[in-house]
Amino acid sequence: MSRSLVFHTKIFQMSQFPASLQRLIREFSALPSVGEKSATRLAYHLVAQNQQLALSLAQSLREAVERVRLCSRCFFLSEEDLCPVCRSSSRDSSVICVVEKPMDVIAIERVGEFRGVYHVLHGLLAPRRGVGIDDIRVRELLSRIDEGGVGEIILALGATVEGDATSYHLASLLSQRGIKATRLAQGMPKGGELEYTDEVTLSRAFSGRSIIGK
Amino acid sequence: MSRSLVFHTKIFQMSQFPASLQRLIREFSALPSVGEKSATRLAYHLVAQNQQLALSLAQSLREAVERVRLCSRCFFLSEEDLCPVCRSSSRDSSVICVVEKPMDVIAIERVGEFRGVYHVLHGLLAPRRGVGIDDIRVRELLSRIDEGGVGEIILALGATVEGDATSYHLASLLSQRGIKATRLAQGMPKGGELEYTDEVTLSRAFSGRSIIGK
Repeated sequence: MSRSLVFHTKIFQMSQFPASLQRLIREFSALPSVGEKSATRLAYHLVAQNQQLALSLAQSLREAVERVRLCSRCFFLSEEDLCPVCRSSSRDSSVICVVEKPMDVIAIERVGEFRGVYHVLHGLLAPRRGVGIDDIRVRELLSRIDEGGVGEIILALGATVEGDATSYHLASLLSQRGIKATRLAQGMPKGGELEYTDEVTLSRAFSGRSIIGK
Repeated sequence: MSRSLVFHTKIFQMSQFPASLQRLIREFSALPSVGEKSATRLAYHLVAQNQQLALSLAQSLREAVERVRLCSRCFFLSEEDLCPVCRSSSRDSSVICVVEKPMDVIAIERVGEFRGVYHVLHGLLAPRRGVGIDDIRVRELLSRIDEGGVGEIILALGATVEGDATSYHLASLLSQRGIKATRLAQGMPKGGELEYTDEVTLSRAFSGRSIIGK
């Protein structure tokens, strides 16, 4: 056997994989934090080793996309008009915790101490990126306040430049309405994202929260 | 505001997420190397931020499960009776590279130097775990050899205990048939999985391969 017959220059990469599998790998790669190697392993596992899970996952994806919408009051994710927190009679609707995104609600609920309700902004003010007051759910927050019965707004935004700027801007709007705004204590690590904060730190940040804007 | 009204003991964990989203998170968590946090991020991204990708992924999963089968000759993944390597007229079918699993074919093709064909065992001999010669595609390999025209078998199995044991066992079966068996040079890191070997090491292991069993 001559080695030159067997070894040759590069020709294919992943083109030996069936087209349907390649498409699956490309789509997995498009997910956040999923590289090509992980995507290949996931796709291979589902197609070759666990077809039951693959079909079940396909079904779940369709159903979730079809059913999940935003809560009409707080803009958290929900299958009903109102989310479980807004529907619950045991939550104190006079205290609204304002967060950037739905995952932040889960992070706070995981601590299990907050008994008020939420308001999900779906973003932070970022003038440089062209995100203004009308691009996030600020008007809807002010409407909730104008309906009355709100005693405190907790601004639970990340300890980032945009988080701080949004907190100050909201605090000034709330101050005009005579509403007390607090923000989380700087027990949170500087520059940290709320979603990744551990439970103890998050709990301390809640109890040490301070009045802002006034 | 009394803090005791707002802060309370643990009640929910992730139960505020819609049921369909929770199911999606559970299924993502069932994938290899995907923890609950990653699963939550993936599910949230697909349902709340990229529904187009979610629906497309659901479709791709179904199609891949429906279309992908094993090549009837080498047992690699294929949408046709024969995979692209087995169908190709430019590959040298007298040299068969034996691998444990389909991902290993991709790893070798990525190097781009091997011009022979493959045989995917779909496992390694592991008597302790009850995996014997009839549980992996050994008989099918011997049948291919008995059809004639095979000059060399390259045993490209991982440098693990099970990989080595399987190589020796196959080499002995091949030696009885007068077939030259080689295995990859121990340029591969000891204990390493083939799938994760870098291209240079894998290329060196190919060129430094040595005759086994005789």
